[in-house]
Amino acid sequence: MKLETEILAKASAQARGLAIDAVHKCSSGHLGLPLGATEIGAVLFGNALVHNPDEPKWLNRDRFILSAGHGSMFIYTWLHLSGYDLSLEELKNFRQLHSKTPGHPEFHETPGVEATTGPLGQGIANAVGYAVSGKMAEARFNTAEHKIFDNHIIALAGDGCMQEGVALEAVSFAGHQGLDNLILIYDANDVTLDAMADKSQSDDVVKRFKSLGWDVQLLVDGHDQAAILKSINKAKKATSGKPQLIVAKTVIGKGIPEVQGTQKGHGEGGAKFSDAARAGLGLPAEHFYVSDDVREYFAKHKKRLARGYKAWVKTFELWAAANPDKAALLESRNTPISAAALLEKIPVFPADAKLATRAAGRDVLQPIAAAHPLFISGSADLYGSTLNYIASDKDFDKANRGGRNIRYGIREHAMAAINNGIAYDGIFRTSCATFLVFADYSRPSMRIAALAKLPVTYIYTHDSIGVGEDGPTHQPVETISGLRVIPNLDVIRPADPEEAAGAFAAALERADGPTLLALTRQNLPNLNDIPPHIRRAGVLKGAYVAIQETAPLTAILLATGSELQLAVAAAKQLGAGVRVVSVPSFERFNRQSAEYRESILPKAVRKRVAIEAGVTGLWHQYVGLDGKVIGIDRFGMSAPAPTIFKELGITAEAVVTAVQSLS
Amino acid sequence: MKLETEILAKASAQARGLAIDAVHKCSSGHLGLPLGATEIGAVLFGNALVHNPDEPKWLNRDRFILSAGHGSMFIYTWLHLSGYDLSLEELKNFRQLHSKTPGHPEFHETPGVEATTGPLGQGIANAVGYAVSGKMAEARFNTAEHKIFDNHIIALAGDGCMQEGVALEAVSFAGHQGLDNLILIYDANDVTLDAMADKSQSDDVVKRFKSLGWDVQLLVDGHDQAAILKSINKAKKATSGKPQLIVAKTVIGKGIPEVQGTQKGHGEGGAKFSDAARAGLGLPAEHFYVSDDVREYFAKHKKRLARGYKAWVKTFELWAAANPDKAALLESRNTPISAAALLEKIPVFPADAKLATRAAGRDVLQPIAAAHPLFISGSADLYGSTLNYIASDKDFDKANRGGRNIRYGIREHAMAAINNGIAYDGIFRTSCATFLVFADYSRPSMRIAALAKLPVTYIYTHDSIGVGEDGPTHQPVETISGLRVIPNLDVIRPADPEEAAGAFAAALERADGPTLLALTRQNLPNLNDIPPHIRRAGVLKGAYVAIQETAPLTAILLATGSELQLAVAAAKQLGAGVRVVSVPSFERFNRQSAEYRESILPKAVRKRVAIEAGVTGLWHQYVGLDGKVIGIDRFGMSAPAPTIFKELGITAEAVVTAVQSLS
Repeated sequence: MKLETEILAKASAQARGLAIDAVHKCSSGHLGLPLGATEIGAVLFGNALVHNPDEPKWLNRDRFILSAGHGSMFIYTWLHLSGYDLSLEELKNFRQLHSKTPGHPEFHETPGVEATTGPLGQGIANAVGYAVSGKMAEARFNTAEHKIFDNHIIALAGDGCMQEGVALEAVSFAGHQGLDNLILIYDANDVTLDAMADKSQSDDVVKRFKSLGWDVQLLVDGHDQAAILKSINKAKKATSGKPQLIVAKTVIGKGIPEVQGTQKGHGEGGAKFSDAARAGLGLPAEHFYVSDDVREYFAKHKKRLARGYKAWVKTFELWAAANPDKAALLESRNTPISAAALLEKIPVFPADAKLATRAAGRDVLQPIAAAHPLFISGSADLYGSTLNYIASDKDFDKANRGGRNIRYGIREHAMAAINNGIAYDGIFRTSCATFLVFADYSRPSMRIAALAKLPVTYIYTHDSIGVGEDGPTHQPVETISGLRVIPNLDVIRPADPEEAAGAFAAALERADGPTLLALTRQNLPNLNDIPPHIRRAGVLKGAYVAIQETAPLTAILLATGSELQLAVAAAKQLGAGVRVVSVPSFERFNRQSAEYRESILPKAVRKRVAIEAGVTGLWHQYVGLDGKVIGIDRFGMSAPAPTIFKELGITAEAVVTAVQSLS
Repeated sequence: MKLETEILAKASAQARGLAIDAVHKCSSGHLGLPLGATEIGAVLFGNALVHNPDEPKWLNRDRFILSAGHGSMFIYTWLHLSGYDLSLEELKNFRQLHSKTPGHPEFHETPGVEATTGPLGQGIANAVGYAVSGKMAEARFNTAEHKIFDNHIIALAGDGCMQEGVALEAVSFAGHQGLDNLILIYDANDVTLDAMADKSQSDDVVKRFKSLGWDVQLLVDGHDQAAILKSINKAKKATSGKPQLIVAKTVIGKGIPEVQGTQKGHGEGGAKFSDAARAGLGLPAEHFYVSDDVREYFAKHKKRLARGYKAWVKTFELWAAANPDKAALLESRNTPISAAALLEKIPVFPADAKLATRAAGRDVLQPIAAAHPLFISGSADLYGSTLNYIASDKDFDKANRGGRNIRYGIREHAMAAINNGIAYDGIFRTSCATFLVFADYSRPSMRIAALAKLPVTYIYTHDSIGVGEDGPTHQPVETISGLRVIPNLDVIRPADPEEAAGAFAAALERADGPTLLALTRQNLPNLNDIPPHIRRAGVLKGAYVAIQETAPLTAILLATGSELQLAVAAAKQLGAGVRVVSVPSFERFNRQSAEYRESILPKAVRKRVAIEAGVTGLWHQYVGLDGKVIGIDRFGMSAPAPTIFKELGITAEAVVTAVQSLS
């Protein structure tokens, strides 16, 4: 498409004005990128990007991810000008309560925002996830006759993103996987928030990316529209099978002479020069000014984009008619998953099963994968331990884009961030695995999954001191509690194979947030005192009465995971008035009605003892000031697992003693 | 020194035998690296490494860090043979309770172990920290006459470490800083735990490291002693001003033909072939066999090393005599810091001070830096926001190794891991800073700081929804609670400038673990209702009575940080029987005597309301089942801070209502 440089230059000046006015109005925000990458925005949204502002979720759109989320006025401006449902009023309400223009872009808040970014580095890895999803979708759905997926993923990132480990991991993964549908534009302005970038970095980025299997173009003038378009088109047409980097040298804060090109141009500091800047840009004194001809240009462009979209819809309809199975499969991504229906497909484990919950997970995963062909499962180099390989399928790799198992390498952080990208795309139902203790490595991305309501499933194993000999570095004594505090993240720690089945069903059922399954390394007995269906259904409620008292209730024992068997054993010693409550998920339980919660934990009964092989703090919401918690408020130790349980007092005897000590 | 290849080859065979026997005996552990990197160990510990097994903390030793900590039998074997206080009995007790040979190396457990490693990637970044410490020590203490520091840092890492983001960040930082005292040996065996490495990586490592400012040597045969020594000596003598990478191609699990060179060689799988392997290595049937001549060689080598050490001691004594100030400064690293003495050096803030606690921190930091010249403070590209720059000093960089401010770049994870390295070295008292929400990025290293009892101070600012417009991605609603659950990490959230002074003093006083200071972005009033010395001393206790009731006690309000002012305001409305307890640190409070805790929170008083702008779960340990917590069990929002506090109900009125609602 012909590049109309004159009108886009005008649009660029006005885009700069919009950013300056918005930041000036609320006295906060970042001007550096919106002003520095303006021409990149103009070329993308005014020409290169294949999208449809009226159909922000169009399956074959180019996905644009602003990794440098602090420069949010960049995307808000261009989405507004492009004709997305984002009014000028919203730009005026930048960073105000309940606006569609929050400080950093948020996935659910603004049409056209493809990812919640801001924590640096995440967006690059999210884009890699989108690229994985794209490759998988192409392999599954395109046919020789009809290509319904041939889009690109385009991410814009700054120095901050490029320094972050999560991005470095993701970049390495993308190169290894040859994700040639991915174009990363590096807004290389030589400035970070604190200082000139040469105070903290001296990488040769071109060589670095080449060493990682990327094609690299150096764009000497990142404000030259024609050169930008040429780079993007070259990247889109590349046949090397490699992801594409465009290093665009830009001037940060360009348009505010007093600060541009320095770290003062990064934040809101330049806004105080807004009147002079506006004049310098050739804009009228009117704030939030957009000229009619710029509006007309984008209206015309939008129609052009709509024609492309309509052509695709025709192709899609032909494809759907010719491939009803594929079409049904694609449509199934929007079908809610019923835990009950799923559980019917998971055979009940033999009563004498003595399995680690990770092994139970392996057995549960297979029927789930069979029932849900869009379910995929990756591991951070630990399939042999996390046991979440989909046995009926193969690896996802360059030669087999249909594979449902993804080898992320020893890159836990990127794994989680890439899973976010896959989940944002909404086509595949994604899960990933590592040791629970390494949840810390992936935590920043898990947090965003929770914030952005992404239904990712984390299959994290080796969930306690049961790890044994590997010692305290690998024993997640505090990890589960650390995850329980994250809003909208469900943590489930099943106690035996049947609870594990319930846990997977609970995770798959969830559509509005992530679920972490904390699974044991060590074998656990099947808890046959409790009927299988009670165990499965109980998990869905978060907590349930596992052993009902058979005399007036005097004491309640609470436990999760591998310690439930200890509570059951203790109850048998303590007598008929003791109830055992299994609490596989605090979050699910806390969402139940007050009546249900009271029925499980009657407020009047204060003799309560909880046991869990981890830190104790959070348990006091259930045992209060009068109860006791048997737990581990220290790091673990290296020894065989049974030795450690004993040494740290995680035993049925400790529960008995604790109950007896309560008045 | 001449390389005695014959005896070292014999030692290598026996080292392999020791590793096989230890792993075989406990049926767990990793053989891959101990067998694959054996000759590297032989050359290091039998020749190249400058150290003294009788003085494991010798200031000028070469530091050896096993980043690939799962290969712990590597270091245990070579420490044992070298004559460290690590008996053959300990090797036989590999991975057993209370042995000095835990599953992964632990800093405090084993003489000669320089870092707690195992979580992959950490060790590389720790080594970078040691290298920073070394450069700083050289700059501060060496004189034209006497070089008391001229050692090297040598780290050994595998593919796992090399894929991790924390290592990638640290490697980039090391290249930028030109840390030429650092030698990284990459045990490149083409195998990861799950599979051949080419399933997950295809980086060109040589080019990658060169692009990052490193010198690289490719060692085609990592089992060739002469070549190994040549590489190490070349790296030690390099004058390029760059860190040094040696890529050593090795055969994983070498010595067990059934598994070597494949992922089966990684773990303990090969141990079942131990008899055949032992025979193949030319070893007798005796397990844990070490020949007399190998013992003699290492005894002789130890004497040689002791001579080098003694020569250094002479130099050191001459240096100390000639430079008593420097000697006293160096010695001061071992002097306990008294919080009380420190607080005397920090002026009381004016009663009308209205400062963010981050700004109070800036003011408190300066007298601390003046009083403790070995105190250093870095930031992840946020000095302008975290305000922890030591104003009397400059940046640490290539041109100024004496600088006390370190610009880590946008590398929060590496920053924390590098701080661990500096703290392990024990010369400098280190601190670092970023936004609190990014504690998630540095969490894996903070966890190890807690486990390894390292006195690092984290100055993390922007501690709540007070962040305002930046929105939920940047508002740490759950972060503080997430950190409070980490054993041995003290979290302190001061409520005003005086509490901030107490918080810094508390952090500096601690010798056996890290402290995180959670500081506000927004201004807070000085809480003049409470005398300054009460506020300061109260922080040291973790919690204290801020406002004493003046009538029989009926209710207790608890708060931290910016919400203490709300509790104080609520108390005034609620009347004379209400007590306000400030709880800046759960951990410090929970370590107090039962009597103290009862004096602050009398068990009989159940009408308790806590307020904190964060998730509520952990507060139930103080308010129990009968109290209430005013908090935020969801993510935040983008708007001006006062609007958000009101919108989310974090107000004095909410406290009043909650107290009145309690029967």
